[in-house]
Amino acid sequence: MSDLRLPTGPVDLTRHATDATPGFTAGKSEGKQALADLGEELSDLQERLFAEGRSGFSRSVLLVLQGMDTSGKGGVLRHTVGLIDPQGVRITSFKAPTDEERRHHFLWRIRRAVPEPGYVGVFDRSHYEDVLVARVHSLVEPRTVESRYGQINEFEAELVESGTVVLKCMLHISPDTQKERLAERLANPAKHWKYNPGDLDERALWPTYREAYEIALERTNTEVAPWYVVPSDRKWYRNLAVGRLLLDTLRYLNPQWPAADFDVAAEQRRLAEEEPVR
Amino acid sequence: MSDLRLPTGPVDLTRHATDATPGFTAGKSEGKQALADLGEELSDLQERLFAEGRSGFSRSVLLVLQGMDTSGKGGVLRHTVGLIDPQGVRITSFKAPTDEERRHHFLWRIRRAVPEPGYVGVFDRSHYEDVLVARVHSLVEPRTVESRYGQINEFEAELVESGTVVLKCMLHISPDTQKERLAERLANPAKHWKYNPGDLDERALWPTYREAYEIALERTNTEVAPWYVVPSDRKWYRNLAVGRLLLDTLRYLNPQWPAADFDVAAEQRRLAEEEPVR
Repeated sequence: MSDLRLPTGPVDLTRHATDATPGFTAGKSEGKQALADLGEELSDLQERLFAEGRSGFSRSVLLVLQGMDTSGKGGVLRHTVGLIDPQGVRITSFKAPTDEERRHHFLWRIRRAVPEPGYVGVFDRSHYEDVLVARVHSLVEPRTVESRYGQINEFEAELVESGTVVLKCMLHISPDTQKERLAERLANPAKHWKYNPGDLDERALWPTYREAYEIALERTNTEVAPWYVVPSDRKWYRNLAVGRLLLDTLRYLNPQWPAADFDVAAEQRRLAEEEPVR
Repeated sequence: MSDLRLPTGPVDLTRHATDATPGFTAGKSEGKQALADLGEELSDLQERLFAEGRSGFSRSVLLVLQGMDTSGKGGVLRHTVGLIDPQGVRITSFKAPTDEERRHHFLWRIRRAVPEPGYVGVFDRSHYEDVLVARVHSLVEPRTVESRYGQINEFEAELVESGTVVLKCMLHISPDTQKERLAERLANPAKHWKYNPGDLDERALWPTYREAYEIALERTNTEVAPWYVVPSDRKWYRNLAVGRLLLDTLRYLNPQWPAADFDVAAEQRRLAEEEPVR
């Protein structure tokens, strides 16, 4: 899925299609099947990574999901991340910071949530909110926002250096798609809980959010932790694309079953010759 | 699955079958299908609970998994908990306490991991280790162990009072089953990471662990947070039984889609009449 990798340089999101399906030529039902077909290899690789983590290796994966409201972060969690054994997954959903979190540096709560060795960590929203909503609503001084891009790059570089692959996905939808999805939420009583009137106020700021995303993407699209822009108007493609990116990441890590650090034959003898246990 | 509920009074685990399938008369393939069939209702109820949590309700579920090594806590996580949208699940695996954790009260790390409103929290091992391994290996003074049963009961009663249903499952296997599973781990290089020679030393203490379990089960089998003893020699039954207990729990909670706290028609008009967003 390297065609989703954001090229370095200035970013113009209006030039990135939201309804394309790069890397996949068939349609929806084939796309859903293709996602299901990833499950086995994803699970196998994830379990090997987990095994390494229990055996002293320090590698892990951090999947960062960002996108406008209704872009489908929850859908990716359910359909893509849900393919992996939950034992090896740690999801953190970042909401508006609590009072305690606000008293700390913006990366404080983020650092506490980075995946332990062997885990696939998933951030549902992330430290990027601190240069997105914070910028759009002037929650902090402009120079503070300004300083955060570099701090994010340093933080992610540290993560990578310590063995965590950082996979950053921006779920990219059109304003029309958001409108449809908000209308669906309003039309369905089982989805009212996902809606609040503030969503429309935020939506009215779409161009300002787009600009904030463009700046953030450009300035944090580093070699060690690049961005992927995932066309997300089609839910099935979005889920499949993130699944493939996750699979590419795990294949790249190529985790191996750790060798026994004990004498296997000796343990087999001990077990065979033990005193009866009742 | 009320037949798995541990009766109050003294506990003799040797009188609880490990290979029975109470409440299910068919065999393995039907059992696996029956578990898969729970998925839809489990998911629906879990999403309603999650919706409630986002709407100011404080209810949640805490599934506590305890059992001897190889009893299948990991299998339940993968096959049963894996049926639920991972977005609404928070798993905590408790290992030997860290130095920091050891400096605190034994419930300190536990309290930090209780599920937030709307979530299904799962403890893979739990505060019960502090009256099991702690007792078997005399890690603390006998009077300290003694005081912990009451502290656990108070803690769980608090949880229940604040809206968390505490579902405690002891995965019950026979020593012969453990022997088979340890032999399988030793025979399969992809499972060597799950084994360490200390496992056999612990196994030799089986009767002491059983006694520690019997005391813990008896003394913490409260009305508000009772124990379920799940026969776990058959993996498919164990997974199904925990799935049914979880479903029973969610049905009992009977969560409902929260009513909109905004004027739906007014929001629909606002959305229809908005300035074009580009």
